[in-house]
Amino acid sequence: MKARVHVMLKNGVLDPQGEAVRHALGTLGFDGVDGVRQGKVIELELADGTSEATVNEMCEKLLANTVIESYQVELL
Amino acid sequence: MKARVHVMLKNGVLDPQGEAVRHALGTLGFDGVDGVRQGKVIELELADGTSEATVNEMCEKLLANTVIESYQVELL
Repeated sequence: MKARVHVMLKNGVLDPQGEAVRHALGTLGFDGVDGVRQGKVIELELADGTSEATVNEMCEKLLANTVIESYQVELL
Repeated sequence: MKARVHVMLKNGVLDPQGEAVRHALGTLGFDGVDGVRQGKVIELELADGTSEATVNEMCEKLLANTVIESYQVELL
C-alpha cells in the first residue's frame, strides 16, 4: 500500500522559499500571483495493513517538525 | 483561487533524500517501509480565472526541472 504525507509550514510561519518563488514568478511575467507556500510531499511504500495511526507516528517522530509544520496523511 | 502543484522526481532518478528518510524510519523501529520518495508541493494563491495552462507554464519555466522531475497541477 501507499501513503502520501503533505508537510506544510504552519500559517504565520515565514516561508522564504515560497516568497522567493513568488518573486521569481513575477519576474518571469506571471501576474496575479498573490502568495506562494512551499512544502514537502513524501510518498511512502508501506507493508499492507499499516494503519493511519502508524503513519501519523512517523510524522510526529521524523517527517514533520510539529513546532512549525503541520502534516496531512492520505492513504492511497 | 488556489492551485496546488506536486513536483516529484521521475521514476528511475535517484532520490537520496527519500532514501535517507527510509533508512531513518527503519532506525526508529518502523518496519515494512519499502520505499520513500520525497518531492515538493507548492501552493499558489492566484488571481481568479487563471487557467491551468498558465500554471503548467509556470511549472515548465520555474517550478519543475522537467529533465528529472514530473509535475501535476491541481486547481482548488
